[in-house]
Amino acid sequence: MSMDAAIVAPVAGGLGLVFALITYLGVIKQSVGSDKMKAIGEEIHLGAMTFLRAEYTKLLVFVVVVAGLLGWKLGLYSAIAFVSGAFASGLAGFIGMKAATKGNVRTAAAAKDKGVGAALLVAFNGGAVMGMSVASLGLIGLGGLYLLFVNGDPASAGVVSGFSMGASSIALFARIGGGIFTKAADVGSDLVGKLEAGIPEDDPRNPGVIADNVGDNVGDVAGMGADIFESYVGAMVASITIAATMSAADLAGLTTGANGQSSLMVLPLTMAIIGLVASAIGILGMNVFKNMDPSKALMGSEVVAGVLFLIGTWVAIGMYGLSSGIFWAILGGSVAGFLIGKATEYYTASKPVFRIIEASKTGPATNIIAGFAVGLESCAAPLILICGAIWLSFSQAGLYGIAMAAVGMLATVGVTMTIDAYGPVADNAGGIAQMAELGDEVRSITDGLDAIGNTTAAIGKGFAIGSAALTALALFVAFKQAVEAASGQAVVMDIGQPDVVVGLLIGAMVVLLAAAMTMTSVGKAAQEMVAEIRRQFKEIPGLLAGTGKPDTARCVEISTNAALKEMILPVLLAVIAPIIVGFVLGAAALGGMLAGSLLTGVVLALLMSNAGGSWDNAKKFIETGDVPGEKKGGEAHGAAVIGDTVGDPFKDTTGPAMNILIKLISIVALILAPLL
Amino acid sequence: MSMDAAIVAPVAGGLGLVFALITYLGVIKQSVGSDKMKAIGEEIHLGAMTFLRAEYTKLLVFVVVVAGLLGWKLGLYSAIAFVSGAFASGLAGFIGMKAATKGNVRTAAAAKDKGVGAALLVAFNGGAVMGMSVASLGLIGLGGLYLLFVNGDPASAGVVSGFSMGASSIALFARIGGGIFTKAADVGSDLVGKLEAGIPEDDPRNPGVIADNVGDNVGDVAGMGADIFESYVGAMVASITIAATMSAADLAGLTTGANGQSSLMVLPLTMAIIGLVASAIGILGMNVFKNMDPSKALMGSEVVAGVLFLIGTWVAIGMYGLSSGIFWAILGGSVAGFLIGKATEYYTASKPVFRIIEASKTGPATNIIAGFAVGLESCAAPLILICGAIWLSFSQAGLYGIAMAAVGMLATVGVTMTIDAYGPVADNAGGIAQMAELGDEVRSITDGLDAIGNTTAAIGKGFAIGSAALTALALFVAFKQAVEAASGQAVVMDIGQPDVVVGLLIGAMVVLLAAAMTMTSVGKAAQEMVAEIRRQFKEIPGLLAGTGKPDTARCVEISTNAALKEMILPVLLAVIAPIIVGFVLGAAALGGMLAGSLLTGVVLALLMSNAGGSWDNAKKFIETGDVPGEKKGGEAHGAAVIGDTVGDPFKDTTGPAMNILIKLISIVALILAPLL
Repeated sequence: MSMDAAIVAPVAGGLGLVFALITYLGVIKQSVGSDKMKAIGEEIHLGAMTFLRAEYTKLLVFVVVVAGLLGWKLGLYSAIAFVSGAFASGLAGFIGMKAATKGNVRTAAAAKDKGVGAALLVAFNGGAVMGMSVASLGLIGLGGLYLLFVNGDPASAGVVSGFSMGASSIALFARIGGGIFTKAADVGSDLVGKLEAGIPEDDPRNPGVIADNVGDNVGDVAGMGADIFESYVGAMVASITIAATMSAADLAGLTTGANGQSSLMVLPLTMAIIGLVASAIGILGMNVFKNMDPSKALMGSEVVAGVLFLIGTWVAIGMYGLSSGIFWAILGGSVAGFLIGKATEYYTASKPVFRIIEASKTGPATNIIAGFAVGLESCAAPLILICGAIWLSFSQAGLYGIAMAAVGMLATVGVTMTIDAYGPVADNAGGIAQMAELGDEVRSITDGLDAIGNTTAAIGKGFAIGSAALTALALFVAFKQAVEAASGQAVVMDIGQPDVVVGLLIGAMVVLLAAAMTMTSVGKAAQEMVAEIRRQFKEIPGLLAGTGKPDTARCVEISTNAALKEMILPVLLAVIAPIIVGFVLGAAALGGMLAGSLLTGVVLALLMSNAGGSWDNAKKFIETGDVPGEKKGGEAHGAAVIGDTVGDPFKDTTGPAMNILIKLISIVALILAPLL
Repeated sequence: MSMDAAIVAPVAGGLGLVFALITYLGVIKQSVGSDKMKAIGEEIHLGAMTFLRAEYTKLLVFVVVVAGLLGWKLGLYSAIAFVSGAFASGLAGFIGMKAATKGNVRTAAAAKDKGVGAALLVAFNGGAVMGMSVASLGLIGLGGLYLLFVNGDPASAGVVSGFSMGASSIALFARIGGGIFTKAADVGSDLVGKLEAGIPEDDPRNPGVIADNVGDNVGDVAGMGADIFESYVGAMVASITIAATMSAADLAGLTTGANGQSSLMVLPLTMAIIGLVASAIGILGMNVFKNMDPSKALMGSEVVAGVLFLIGTWVAIGMYGLSSGIFWAILGGSVAGFLIGKATEYYTASKPVFRIIEASKTGPATNIIAGFAVGLESCAAPLILICGAIWLSFSQAGLYGIAMAAVGMLATVGVTMTIDAYGPVADNAGGIAQMAELGDEVRSITDGLDAIGNTTAAIGKGFAIGSAALTALALFVAFKQAVEAASGQAVVMDIGQPDVVVGLLIGAMVVLLAAAMTMTSVGKAAQEMVAEIRRQFKEIPGLLAGTGKPDTARCVEISTNAALKEMILPVLLAVIAPIIVGFVLGAAALGGMLAGSLLTGVVLALLMSNAGGSWDNAKKFIETGDVPGEKKGGEAHGAAVIGDTVGDPFKDTTGPAMNILIKLISIVALILAPLL
């Protein structure tokens, strides 16, 4: 029985890719609209693809070096797994970008020619190509490696960690690089365009506008895709490793059959297959839902997938003869993930935002203070929910249950990633509508779709942080068990011991340093961008009057160079620090380091993402006229724009990078485990 | 031998208080200058004293209730100890405020009549009253309780924890209340006065200016004094408790004599006596140093005290027949504390500040991003130094060594607190000089003294965070040993166990919530202050022209009310949360909670204090003309003022509160230990 799923996984993944391809062909056969739209779309597409090519070329060196080291220390299989993970992550990013940068202009055209329902469907399908590719590539890669190298044998399970490390390191590069690219462009364009020149967002006279739109794809599509891909893979790898290194007593509590351990090992793959099928059905459902209210339509597609996934998982657990406690752990994880998303939505789109708006009336300083306070406060509910998920899943299915809660959150990645990727497609469509001057009516359709995208993105971010915390914790447990399995003795990581405390502090330090680097990079690059845009406004005759043509390519170049240069160091830090701590201070200190980075990373991710999101919406609520007595261009709005600009790197560069960072540190530790 | 120190301690403390009294009398016999100065000084003095009285009245209820609970659950001695700690802390704050608010106006008068050397001496002696009172009251209280209830008996050592809890809870109230008071006034006055009305800081036309100057005393003198007092006491209590619950094997490694354990228990008191004497000599040295360059004079007084303390401690350790490893642990702690101070100075007054200034040229948003990045980065060096201190002191003298490293940092509190309190006295003197229109020459003397005060304050803050981290860690160790002593079995707090992880997350959550509350309180109160000052500028005829009189009392009232109302909840949270976690989830989870709050609290304290300090200096450097091409009133300066305002609650409310918070949580846990 358990073998079957390992064979089915790559096949299901292959079919999923076919599904993605058909969806892609459906998107590109849509009209691109006018020549002007086509030209703008092409410019964004080319900018994004050029960046991706430059990025991947640079990463090739990293992949080759690390693969060589892994091959030398841990054998050829680990090296192959690592390269596969890196390749799959890169490929997912490439496919997603391709579809998103084809989908954006077609969404704008559909909004113009056919109305909101058609536009929603195009944007959604643009995202679905990415969603299905991420899920399918994960299944093909992990399923294939499992079939080739592991195949139910606990002693060989370590090989799959390499796949996860490949995915994690590419994801961190993509997130940080993409985050720096997009926010340098965004901050720079806003500071000069909106605040100094007083022209609207996405105005074609702004030299930074193309870079800004390219950035949405580079950061929110490719970066986000690599991020989710590695969460998905990481959660599965953690649960496979925990199952493979489980004690006989723990095993007896969860299974009754003779193949109990291999069933536990293959269950995550089975769930991913069920999740893929459920996601495909949910995505197809959009053809039915498209004429509903767009936010309900998105929700509908997600609910269909979620319910089908849970039913399928219940059946699978029964067929494998496993404890039903595992199902409750999975359900608990899903519910906690959903509630974390709701808490995120509350802090970034509800009452707390009005506290920030109120504070904006007394200027930017009080706006920033209020937003930062909201960010601090917003950490509490998710932390409690994570505690609840840990408690429930552990009581139901032991340490394996914690990992399965994370898998449960991520198994329907096909549809959740679709909805995440839908956002930037709709956002870009709006930008194109503005640049191509399609008129207010079209813009209001794309704005509406974009606004829903912002809410779903907020929920998606909360979900991502929740699953990252559980995944990192599961990887931590896997690390501990792997060290114990390799050394043949129990490893106690007692926080009363100085080496563990030192590890805790170092873990926090690494996270803080990486966060500082990314913030500094965005700040520096944005300053360069500001100087360049100011220069163009001054030196290019007639630019503001609309008769001159901006040098948009130069701005894309500034973002590209900054991103490629500045993404290296934080990733190297995350890879090298655990190696040093592990070999110099030992396994217990490394365990402390994982806990310290987990705690600090989750806190920073929540704080920065939510503060950024609430600053963003404080500005938006004033702009949409929802705040009595305040309007666009007023004093409070000016303060809110400054808050939003501060929030940009918080929520789109540093905050999201923290999720991947803590998982990358954990996965490096897990790979080191046999050597300690 | 060991008995002797317990008898000497209260006597030495009594003599220290006499020293403080003589110093006080020396300060008040100085001239107060003109009638106008006298009136302004009186207004500040009265505002501060009124606040203190209202605060203490409110705290009486808290003290009575907690004392009742402690008496009921842990016996009369613990209740007495708690009340004594609370009383001593309050008394230290009262004496310090009294001296500081008498010293400020006399410093201004000395600057006017006698020049910089005399002004330095008055301000320094104003601070010395506080410094010597803090050290002396700690010795009297702790020494007295030790003599009465403990007296070398390990089983009774738990009683002294009550003293520390009394000191900690009053300190947290004072820090948060004072921090909210001072920053509401500061932010409010700056936003309207500097940014909107364009009048200088401390301008007498600004209605918030008296509240701002009162706030300097309430926050930086009373708040800081209570803070340092509880660190000093906490470190001693932790080391006494660790010594009292030490295993025979650990004991054998550190002592040879028959009275080994009681020698280890009394050593912290002995060090405090030596530190007090050394501080008194250092303070008297200022009479010699006063005509040197002021920053060298302050340093000189500190170095004299430090060297004498180390020599005395070396001798004492030898006389007790204890391991010299203890001395190296103490020395390691002192060196680490000094280096943390230097790292703080680097980030808040050196190259990184120029990164913020550069970013200010592109507006407030990039200023904030750059400052926040500096804050994140500034955590790294202190964390590594704390790791180094832990490693060294543990390898030299076991867990006891870690506690002794903290005691070593704090034993010369007499002189370090003097220098800390000197800062706000000099700052206030500048304010009075401005309000009484004493002219540029006087103002430049007080500005010079104030600037040195800012640097010493930055170093002092780094020192405070370093010692807080070590003290909290020592309290954590004491907690663990106390639980083990009470239950008679080893307690393992393995971060691989879910209950410990849940504790870690809850610890982080409590710290974040308290931080959010304090930030929100400052924001809200500042908005109220802005509205009031705007109203007065609009409604009081001739106010800006200088013919109308501002209603300064109303602004003092706003700050007072906000402070008294908002200080309650964060403290209750810190006291109640560990009780719930301890009783509901058990000792291991509570241990996790201590570690989680320690890590998060230290990170937030470093991040927020240093970001705030660097924003402050970015503004100051532009104002003093140290930045080519930028000047006061320019665009970059405007951005820097906004950054400075954001930094106000970072560095003076929330950041410093974190230090006390983590220690209060730890001490509550320590007191609970026998009941778990």
